[in-house]
Amino acid sequence: VSSDLIAQTQARLDNKTKPLGALGRLEEIAARYAAIAGNFAPETGPKVIYTFAGDHGIVEEGVSACPKEVTTQMVFNFLRGGAGVNVLARHAGAEVRVVDIGVDHEFEPAPGLHLCKVARGTRNFTKESAMTREEAIAALEVGIALADRAKAEGIAMLGTGDMGIGNTTPSSAIIAALTGCPVAEVTHRGTGIDDAALQKKIGLIEAGLALHRPDPADPVDLLAKVGGLEIGGIAGLVLGAAANRIPVVVDGFISTAGALIACELHPNVKDYVFAAHASVEIGHRRMLQRIDAEPILDLQLRLGEGTGAALAMGIIEAAVKILKEMATFAEAGVTP
Amino acid sequence: VSSDLIAQTQARLDNKTKPLGALGRLEEIAARYAAIAGNFAPETGPKVIYTFAGDHGIVEEGVSACPKEVTTQMVFNFLRGGAGVNVLARHAGAEVRVVDIGVDHEFEPAPGLHLCKVARGTRNFTKESAMTREEAIAALEVGIALADRAKAEGIAMLGTGDMGIGNTTPSSAIIAALTGCPVAEVTHRGTGIDDAALQKKIGLIEAGLALHRPDPADPVDLLAKVGGLEIGGIAGLVLGAAANRIPVVVDGFISTAGALIACELHPNVKDYVFAAHASVEIGHRRMLQRIDAEPILDLQLRLGEGTGAALAMGIIEAAVKILKEMATFAEAGVTP
Repeated sequence: VSSDLIAQTQARLDNKTKPLGALGRLEEIAARYAAIAGNFAPETGPKVIYTFAGDHGIVEEGVSACPKEVTTQMVFNFLRGGAGVNVLARHAGAEVRVVDIGVDHEFEPAPGLHLCKVARGTRNFTKESAMTREEAIAALEVGIALADRAKAEGIAMLGTGDMGIGNTTPSSAIIAALTGCPVAEVTHRGTGIDDAALQKKIGLIEAGLALHRPDPADPVDLLAKVGGLEIGGIAGLVLGAAANRIPVVVDGFISTAGALIACELHPNVKDYVFAAHASVEIGHRRMLQRIDAEPILDLQLRLGEGTGAALAMGIIEAAVKILKEMATFAEAGVTP
Repeated sequence: VSSDLIAQTQARLDNKTKPLGALGRLEEIAARYAAIAGNFAPETGPKVIYTFAGDHGIVEEGVSACPKEVTTQMVFNFLRGGAGVNVLARHAGAEVRVVDIGVDHEFEPAPGLHLCKVARGTRNFTKESAMTREEAIAALEVGIALADRAKAEGIAMLGTGDMGIGNTTPSSAIIAALTGCPVAEVTHRGTGIDDAALQKKIGLIEAGLALHRPDPADPVDLLAKVGGLEIGGIAGLVLGAAANRIPVVVDGFISTAGALIACELHPNVKDYVFAAHASVEIGHRRMLQRIDAEPILDLQLRLGEGTGAALAMGIIEAAVKILKEMATFAEAGVTP
């Protein structure tokens, strides 16, 4: 993203009827959004949130408070419009599209559902690699293809979301492997496990990392060995959004694990990422630091699905409207 | 507000298809909003932001980077729909109504403008009381009457906003007088004054407080001696909103000074207040602590007008939609 374009957009914002910088982060968001779009009156719609769903072999070890079947059940909930992300996306005027990239269930074709299954879930990474390298690449390609298609459709803003019982576990594994920090510092309660289950979860991640020794310099290796199919799909969507110059709003902990993989693959990707919110999951802050992203919201969310992305899209759209609709000093006859 | 109703609403939220508490502050917001409205499917519209405008005698001392005329110029900007609050309120689906409660200009009647002038600005509080006690009460009554009228119109959610060159100065004076904390700890740069002007501003507030010794146990005395007409109007709107059981979204530093006066007048008022955002003004945090309010957003805003209130209304509406629209475990066939 051109820093010249950011500066030129900021100069326009500085002419609006307000003290310099008085709209704080809205100005920063608007300037970067306009620079990504390459014009000073960028479109903010259509907006689409892709919610990637996948299952996790590690669930058989008891890392989640929910049974694995909930992944499938929630896909149906998304398709009927009853889940959190549906409600918040409707509020934001965004469309939710569900991507079966790795659910352990065969879905019939349905409106709003993309059938892009790479495998029926990952394998238990305490015993074997979660995915083969080929599967990890296939998951990335699913996301990339969806971003390419979004570009062709004229979609102005993308959002990411996830559904996958057990998926805080691979997300914690990814940030721990990438930074070398202690697993306990980036591992939290997911859907709400107790202290004993949390200790067990930490031990399982440590065991998986010790077994596979993923190469932190090879994000695809990391994704394959301890990641998830939906995390790979999200990483691909973020990569594809950047390649197509579409702003992408990254949801919480699991989505940021995907964004992290994308940003490690190419350093320019982070310019296209808007971090929606600060998750309750303790590893999230470290992920955001690694991609130099400041979350837009902090509402103590820990649901995933794209719920935070939907809310943040509303703020981003508001920021862009400031750029497009607010009067300048000259237009309003206000003394600068 | 009934804590039973809050608990009953939370129980409904706990049945939605998500881990317990996973929507964090959205759940807390929805539960309190429903308890205020007294039903589990509360309306969130129509939404109205009242932006109270007034001038300040203290401006003659050089406390602001802007000339006093900007207050009047900005009222015209509001009426033409070009100001920040207009843009953000349109985005939120809220109406902006401007209240001339104390501008040093005679306005002609205009759509969206309430002519409720109490005086043509306050007096310079380093020399005399900003208002008489009667003027302060009249300002409160303007806000109360607008809230009563909003109830009669069926308005579901109110927001507050302010316009008044110089009005961070009385706002800092109010929180300093109320808590007895050092003026320097709650006084900041407003529209963007430099270090020398900030030191001068602190000295002027200290001088005003030393001259008038406002009684912290008498909020009307405080409002009259070192406050502002728009701050009084906001305080009245907040009081009237609580009396009429209408949720009121309080904008930033100046609006919270008004909310503070209202909450000091009756301890139950704070139950009806939603704090929109954390202002850049350093005294804001202390105001919010005093009314036990946690801001919804932190976007480094310092514009006022009701801009933060408009953004926060969007989040509050989203929270209420979660309560109203999200499927339960039973409805969705999801394992709890």
